[in-house]
Formats: sequence, structure tokens, C-alpha cells
Amino acid sequence: MADPKADSGIVTAAILVIGDEILSGRTKDKNIGYIAEYLTNIGIDLKEVRVVADDEADIVAALNALRARYTYVFTTGGIGPTHDDITADSIAKAFGVRIDYHPVAVEMMKKRVAETGGTMNEARMRMTRVPDGAELVLNRISAAPGFWIGNVIVMAGVPNIMQAMLDDAAPKLKTGAKMLSDSVRADCREGDIGTELGEIARKHPDVMIGSYPFMDERGGNTNVVVRSRDAQKIAAAKSAIEAMLTRVKAELAAGRR
Amino acid sequence: MADPKADSGIVTAAILVIGDEILSGRTKDKNIGYIAEYLTNIGIDLKEVRVVADDEADIVAALNALRARYTYVFTTGGIGPTHDDITADSIAKAFGVRIDYHPVAVEMMKKRVAETGGTMNEARMRMTRVPDGAELVLNRISAAPGFWIGNVIVMAGVPNIMQAMLDDAAPKLKTGAKMLSDSVRADCREGDIGTELGEIARKHPDVMIGSYPFMDERGGNTNVVVRSRDAQKIAAAKSAIEAMLTRVKAELAAGRR
Repeated sequence: MADPKADSGIVTAAILVIGDEILSGRTKDKNIGYIAEYLTNIGIDLKEVRVVADDEADIVAALNALRARYTYVFTTGGIGPTHDDITADSIAKAFGVRIDYHPVAVEMMKKRVAETGGTMNEARMRMTRVPDGAELVLNRISAAPGFWIGNVIVMAGVPNIMQAMLDDAAPKLKTGAKMLSDSVRADCREGDIGTELGEIARKHPDVMIGSYPFMDERGGNTNVVVRSRDAQKIAAAKSAIEAMLTRVKAELAAGRR
Repeated sequence: MADPKADSGIVTAAILVIGDEILSGRTKDKNIGYIAEYLTNIGIDLKEVRVVADDEADIVAALNALRARYTYVFTTGGIGPTHDDITADSIAKAFGVRIDYHPVAVEMMKKRVAETGGTMNEARMRMTRVPDGAELVLNRISAAPGFWIGNVIVMAGVPNIMQAMLDDAAPKLKTGAKMLSDSVRADCREGDIGTELGEIARKHPDVMIGSYPFMDERGGNTNVVVRSRDAQKIAAAKSAIEAMLTRVKAELAAGRR
């Protein structure tokens, strides 16, 4: 599939989390935040996340929507040995390809079973099935691989295994100019600076200015985050924000606002 | 909008998380897991989650897809006083209605500002704007309300404020028969029981059987979770799983598998 963003030098991604256990609340996802930070750090912009159930139609629909729209899609979950692990089959279906036992995956699994005991049964063989045309994504923890097909990277749901798979895939990913960021702790409430911050945002259209409230020991406080691919533009916006904060806080202290 | 699930007695929901800070990885979402567990406990099935940026077109597209498909959509984030808080406007646009200052919200905000200092400025007024036809969703922490329009409940992104808004909205939600669950700690690896567990799943089609690997001090272990709205069906499936586990573990101990 052609990459719609190829000309801009911007590389985009989506995450598709697959699993009933996330939607029931039984398992609290720890992968979205990890992958988000990881991709930001290597110059890939995460643009969307979806969480769907272990349901083939839902997985296929979400995957096809996301892989058409973004440079990469990273999936987590549903590649284990049990009947509820239907990710590999669903992805083969989305791509319209067959799924087969991958000879390298079978050899890895046999070796691991020989080392750790147990038999090479149907359940373990299930973890060696990958869609035709996919490449394996290995990990140093388990013998069950993820895989990479088209622009889709399929990873485990267990966080430490997912992280190892991401390390395996990352060097092969196309990356863009890294999104940089800097932040200013405002030491006043969002409502005190919202109007002025909006004016600064309008004057600095090439940076993204985010405002994030939090509570500290004195009450409401605000972190202002400035993001851009251009460090000089970040510095200019940050200076404007700091000057505004100095002025607003002086006015607040003097009771003039 | 008609509820497509009304006849079945099953009430469904989606979550739409709105915020650049989640996608950049700067903020780790804590709301998805909380809402998921909350809805499960009151008899609402969470079916999908999406995370999108602070981008009007993305918010409108995701909201319209989700509100057509599920009984309820819960949104988090983007209803603060700053320029990057565009959720209320985006939702008005998705519903094709105007957005105005809500007189009750304005009074609440004026009262809070009088109590805590500061001025009733443009930024604070921004938090009192709600789409026409929406009802306010209050919270005991801040004077800035969420709102409820059609089948969409719009909440703050700050976790404790979101939680208070969910408490305000929950008594007015339609709920269905609660999804029940029970779990069995297998004390063996997923790969040892996957085939047998799949056979049990086929014989108990009215229950959902999930298998979740985890590591303990002895190595790989597995939690098997059985879910259904019928407690007797859960008990029957759980008995079958326990009998299978007893048999498989005896065979493993005897070196027969």
C-alpha cells in the first residue's frame, strides 16, 4: 500500500489493541503509553489508537481502516496458543492471504520445548502460524514470535514480550524528523492564562501548545507543553509563554486581575 | 438515534479518549481501565475504545462512527479553558447543533471564581459552553461541568474529575444484565492446556473463556477466565476446566505428556 505521508517526511502510526480483557477492565493496558513514548522518541507520530474485542470482524474492520490511513499499525494481543487468540487469522483475513506454519517459528518452538519440557502439541504449534508473506518479529523472552506484514507489526500483549518485539522491529522502521518538546510549569491556574495562551498559540502556528492542569500543594497548577520539529520555534514560543506568565503573575499578585 | 441493541437487553458502550498528550506518550491514560471496570460492574458492555488527537475532523469522525454503533459513547479530555480544548465545539459539530454559554454552568463558574479568587475571564467562560440540547454532567471537584447530548457523555480528562462525572451520570444510564465472571488459576503453562481449553470452549458456546498467561516464581502460569450473564453456565464451564486441569497436571507429573 502506498504511504500517503511519504512525501512530507512525516511517518505516522496507529496502535490496535486486541483483547476482551482490556474492554472488561480485568487487565489494565500498559502498552499504549509505552509504545506512544517509544514512537515519539524515534520520530514516528502516533495518530490514533483503537481497542477492539477478540472478534474477527471487529479486528479486520479496524485493521483495514488503520493500515490504509497511517504509515504503520502496531497491534498488541491475541497471538498466544489458545482458542481466544485469533489475531494472526484475523490479520491474514484482512490482507486476503493464507496462513501457515512458519518453518523458522516451528524450529524455534521445538527447540524451546526441548529445553523447558512439555510436548510440541497443537496449542504450541498454533503460535507458529503466520500469514503468508509475513516476516517474523522475534523476542528474547519467549519462543513465540510476532510478525510483520505489509505495514502492520503484530506483537504480543504481555508487556515485557511486546517491548522486546518492539526492540526487534524498531531498527527496520522508517522514521521522520523527531517531534521535540519543552515544557513550562506555569505556577498558576489554567483559567488564569487560557486567553493569553490562546493568543500566543495563534502567533506561533507552527508549534503545538498544550495546556495540562494538575493539582499541587497550593491548588490548581498548569504545565504548558510546546511541541515542534524545529527547536528554534519551540524556544521562541517558550520565551513568549514565559514573558506572558511573568506579566500575568505580577497582575495577579497586585490584585489587578 | 435508535439504539440498535435495544431489543436484546444488552447495553453497549465505547470510549473516545481525546488528547495529543496521550498519543505523544507524555501522559499515560488512566481512564480507559477505570471506565471499563466501572461499566462492566453496572451491566454495560464496553465494546471499543479509540484515542484521537485534539483535531476537530478526527474527533467528529470517530464520534459519529461510535455513536451510531453503540448505546453510549463516553468521551474524556479536551473540555478545559485553553485553546487546545476543542471537544465541546467538535461534539456540537458532530451533532450539527449550535454551542452556547449554559446559564447554569456560568452561574456555577461565577460562584467558584468568587470563592477562590481570579476573574471571570474569557478562558473560564470557555468552560461553560455546551452544545444546544445538552444536559450538564456535574462533579464535586471542579465548577467546570461535563455534558450529555444524545447518547454521548462528555467528561474531563483529569482522572479524579472524570470519575466524579461518571458517578453523576451513572444513575441515569440504562443498564443490562451484568456480565459475570469467575477465574481459575491453572498452575500450568498456556501451551500445556490450549488444545483442551479450546475443546471446552466449543462445548460451552454460551460462555466466553479467556486464557491469560502470567509469570510466577515457578515460570509460566495461566489464569483462565469464564464470562457469561448466566451464573450456572459459568459454574458448568468452570467445573469442566477444573476437571481438565486435574487430568492434564496428572499426565504432566507422570511424564505422559
